[in-house]
Amino acid sequence: MSYPDELREQVEEYLQQLRFSEGPATEGIEEAMLYSLLAGGKRIRPVLALATAGALGVEPQSVLPLAAALEMIHSYSLIHDDLPAMDDDELRRGKPSCHVAFGEDVAILAGDALYAEAFRLVLTKQEAEPLRLLAAAGELAAATGVNGMVGGQYIDVEGVSVAGPEGLRELHSRKTGKLINASVESVCLLEGVDEERLVNFRAFAVELGVLFQIVDDILDVTGSDQELGKPSGSDQRQGKRTYVSEFGLEEATALAGVSHQQAREALAKAAPSGAPQLEQITDFIAKRES
Amino acid sequence: MSYPDELREQVEEYLQQLRFSEGPATEGIEEAMLYSLLAGGKRIRPVLALATAGALGVEPQSVLPLAAALEMIHSYSLIHDDLPAMDDDELRRGKPSCHVAFGEDVAILAGDALYAEAFRLVLTKQEAEPLRLLAAAGELAAATGVNGMVGGQYIDVEGVSVAGPEGLRELHSRKTGKLINASVESVCLLEGVDEERLVNFRAFAVELGVLFQIVDDILDVTGSDQELGKPSGSDQRQGKRTYVSEFGLEEATALAGVSHQQAREALAKAAPSGAPQLEQITDFIAKRES
Repeated sequence: MSYPDELREQVEEYLQQLRFSEGPATEGIEEAMLYSLLAGGKRIRPVLALATAGALGVEPQSVLPLAAALEMIHSYSLIHDDLPAMDDDELRRGKPSCHVAFGEDVAILAGDALYAEAFRLVLTKQEAEPLRLLAAAGELAAATGVNGMVGGQYIDVEGVSVAGPEGLRELHSRKTGKLINASVESVCLLEGVDEERLVNFRAFAVELGVLFQIVDDILDVTGSDQELGKPSGSDQRQGKRTYVSEFGLEEATALAGVSHQQAREALAKAAPSGAPQLEQITDFIAKRES
Repeated sequence: MSYPDELREQVEEYLQQLRFSEGPATEGIEEAMLYSLLAGGKRIRPVLALATAGALGVEPQSVLPLAAALEMIHSYSLIHDDLPAMDDDELRRGKPSCHVAFGEDVAILAGDALYAEAFRLVLTKQEAEPLRLLAAAGELAAATGVNGMVGGQYIDVEGVSVAGPEGLRELHSRKTGKLINASVESVCLLEGVDEERLVNFRAFAVELGVLFQIVDDILDVTGSDQELGKPSGSDQRQGKRTYVSEFGLEEATALAGVSHQQAREALAKAAPSGAPQLEQITDFIAKRES
């Protein structure tokens, strides 16, 4: 399946040259951070950010610090999600999870540090008009706080989501959706697009987040351990609410189709003259097998 | 002992009206966040920020969002430090630690959320010239990342500090010093002070951070459980490197006296026409009993 590999390579190269520690005393935590950050993956969030820049007529490379920060934040969330007190996952992308490899204390701190360094990167390295940069960084903070990613993870581990499709949508909109939205929206804010365009891109990003999660839930059931890089069926074993647990596999697959269609339509409205890389990512998210 | 209580009250009032959750599903994590954030304490970091504003001739209240963010970051660091995988402290400020009261998973997430909401607060509520606000927020990120607070905590839990006074100073400069520096320096950046003044205020803040830590180490040995709000002697039981373990109690007390003197001299240089509230805080940090 086609994927904007040229953007992914730019992201990968940029991530690989990142260093954080200024002295030898903290090289150990840097090692744990890079172990998780450089474990591969499709880099969907930063690639989305670069593709959004492209769709806005801006050189994708110009948003690399912001894009890398999105991946660092994603990586931090995976490290904390995997902890014994949370989902207790020992495998991540086919390798021992951060806390298995480095110990629980270092894993907690490596996650904390990735989040701090993500903000440092955006605030000190991302070039932009200052007010726009403030808006983009504020969006990152909002997307990852109580009403975003961390709040979603809280709803998930505590099982406090509201019954029915609405509760499920709220859970997932926070847990994974907000950071995917932010990958599109923060770039729009950075480039200062007008309000109408922002609304249209946001509608696309929200639908993309929903699509991502439905497919994720399906893959947890249908994927092999090897494809997923972690044991399949873990949602079910942990009694998590997913689109599959809520609707069954067949209905969830139908919902994914509807969501894919809606995301494509929203994208066509946001970028009427076409946005081939965002189209590729949208199709990839719908059809991926891991 | 005198303390700028009028500033502390402003901080306390501001902290008490903070709310984070936009819906009922995440009220539980907000409760855990506020449990730790509103557990009292001298609020040294935000009071330092307000007093620094005062010393620069600015209305202290104008930096309340930044000041509150400093306390939220401090609170997040205490929650994560207390976790079983870290220092495993069950008491904090005389109350059960966050993970004892709410469970380890919620405590990890409450810490993460406080950190995210601290950035959100600064980036969306702190009024300032945009470039200066970016500089202040960047300072917060740097002070809390690998070369700041989290890196210091890593050095501490892993016991990888360099032998001798220099290693001890590096450990503490990161673990507690950087956030205390940031409480002064981020306000200087927000107000756009010139380079010479910034250097002078920074010299004061660095010495204040050292003083804070020496006294903290002494109090861990000499304080009562009740005064400290946690069991005294915990550093020693955990085999931590402190000024007392390194130099003995008598010599550490002498070092505190020297550091107090140096902090006062640095302050006189930074604020030649006087800065009564910063002087009060400096004396308080030197003479406090908990």
